[in-house]
Amino acid sequence: MLSSGASRVMMMKVPPELVQTLRDSRRVLVATHINPDGDALGSALGLTLALRRMGKEVAVVDRDPVPRIYRFLPGAEEVSPEIPEGDFDVLVLVDCGEIERTGYETLPGQRGLVIDHHLTERNFGDLRWVLSTASSTGEMVFNLVKALGVPLDRDVAVCLYVALFTDTGGFRYSSSCPSAYRAAAEMVEAGAEPWEVTEHVYESHSFQRLALLGKALDRMVRHEHVAIIAVTDDMYQATGSTSEDTENFANMARSIEGIEVGIFLRQIGPNAFKASMRSKGRVNVAAVAERFGGGGHHNAAGGILQGTLEEVRATILKAVEDALGNHQSR
Amino acid sequence: MLSSGASRVMMMKVPPELVQTLRDSRRVLVATHINPDGDALGSALGLTLALRRMGKEVAVVDRDPVPRIYRFLPGAEEVSPEIPEGDFDVLVLVDCGEIERTGYETLPGQRGLVIDHHLTERNFGDLRWVLSTASSTGEMVFNLVKALGVPLDRDVAVCLYVALFTDTGGFRYSSSCPSAYRAAAEMVEAGAEPWEVTEHVYESHSFQRLALLGKALDRMVRHEHVAIIAVTDDMYQATGSTSEDTENFANMARSIEGIEVGIFLRQIGPNAFKASMRSKGRVNVAAVAERFGGGGHHNAAGGILQGTLEEVRATILKAVEDALGNHQSR
Repeated sequence: MLSSGASRVMMMKVPPELVQTLRDSRRVLVATHINPDGDALGSALGLTLALRRMGKEVAVVDRDPVPRIYRFLPGAEEVSPEIPEGDFDVLVLVDCGEIERTGYETLPGQRGLVIDHHLTERNFGDLRWVLSTASSTGEMVFNLVKALGVPLDRDVAVCLYVALFTDTGGFRYSSSCPSAYRAAAEMVEAGAEPWEVTEHVYESHSFQRLALLGKALDRMVRHEHVAIIAVTDDMYQATGSTSEDTENFANMARSIEGIEVGIFLRQIGPNAFKASMRSKGRVNVAAVAERFGGGGHHNAAGGILQGTLEEVRATILKAVEDALGNHQSR
Repeated sequence: MLSSGASRVMMMKVPPELVQTLRDSRRVLVATHINPDGDALGSALGLTLALRRMGKEVAVVDRDPVPRIYRFLPGAEEVSPEIPEGDFDVLVLVDCGEIERTGYETLPGQRGLVIDHHLTERNFGDLRWVLSTASSTGEMVFNLVKALGVPLDRDVAVCLYVALFTDTGGFRYSSSCPSAYRAAAEMVEAGAEPWEVTEHVYESHSFQRLALLGKALDRMVRHEHVAIIAVTDDMYQATGSTSEDTENFANMARSIEGIEVGIFLRQIGPNAFKASMRSKGRVNVAAVAERFGGGGHHNAAGGILQGTLEEVRATILKAVEDALGNHQSR
């Protein structure tokens, strides 16, 4: 997150073979990852709608349902876990680079394409367009749509704006490069409305979510550069909330002055907690997560820990403090 | 907030007389409004630094101190309540259009200029550049700096990025027009770092703030389309927080699904509360505020109410519900 966006000024080059393969296709299957986020759904739907403008027959699948806040996306109602019958000329994985991330064992398609900005270990596909420096898969699809010669209409623009906006943390992460802002300008010109998107994605919290946040913050603990927010089963019961209401709680813990790592612990069983860690950049929380069998990225990682809340808190705090110590002694 | 940004695609024209007056000046005083926000400080400092690059002698005043989260702005340490001695060729009011908003009775300057995107009743100044459709004063100053022929360096870019980013609600409000994104792209190219800005402005909450938010959310009440968050003196005491820790609490109340107006009540005396209202756009809260002697904009307004928390809650709820009724019966 701390790298400069200014180093990525160049225009994004779309591989001509990718453009040609999509042009030549007739029946396309678009798939994305489990627990789809804004970039996954926005990119998948933006591509789906754009390919349909070209006369293609396109289906879009996700093993998991579309989260409530993304159901306003044009085409969201068509995202289905069911793989349609018959063969497909092309399977496009969007915002993920391996079949495993889709939650399906196999997906049909004569040729496999990948459009993603995450680096993966297993390299699925006949043709992979993976740009780890791209702000979002949404920005990549935006450039692909232009390369395909499809005019950006309002529906496609809304999908791609949501993809780009959510994946840059609302233009807050360092992945917010100049080309991301310029792409957003074109999307807004094409009819994406920032306030409409905001209302759906960021101003549609459930009342229960804020009540739950209240209880969690009231019991938040801090140890120097680490803040820990926890949600327990009794808090869910007292507020009528569910785990879906805890999105971004980890970011909240990080948002405190002087805090390097924010931790969110969510009870998932009598003696089990799911931990989400968010770093401001100086601590690699992926390495911390590996110590208890989890994983993730430098600034966002997590895993599952067994024990009472007190035990889990002590374990993860020790792991983060070790990492902080390593950082400070460098 | 609900108007489309797409209607404001045109380039911003900077009045040539404004450019000429600044070019001809030698000693400039820059002033902005009381309780300065990101747009006020970012615009004032961006203009100050750019004029200095031109060899001008520039002082920047604000009657109120720079809030903690904006103290990282280049030049922030020079913002002073003291008006320097001697005469000034030019006084520039930035992000406000009348002397009253600066908190000073008078300010020195042979000519008075205004650069603002708010419409005002009293029209101060010899030369006013007021664009109510501009995303922010920051975007106006960005165009002015270009018209003055000053290269955008990192320090100016950071100031103007903070101005633009904070005043568009982080590109969430409908004031986020295409030209705002394009200006931001140039600022990031010039060295403004989105994550650095975010860390200072949005990820530097005090621990006390989140503890206070916890208590306030735990006691939040909802009446159909209205949510009310209140902070009382005993909550400040229990958490060691102050009124400075309540920024954005009103937005938090608005961010709930189905809520049209979010209200934040902050105790300011034994029997007095300051009310802040935020509307999603369908209710004009400025009109509501006028009913109890307050004021503001369509989507953000407030005022002071006397009474116990229960009395104040009932009064303001009644006023908002009347407005909602008027809206729904239209």
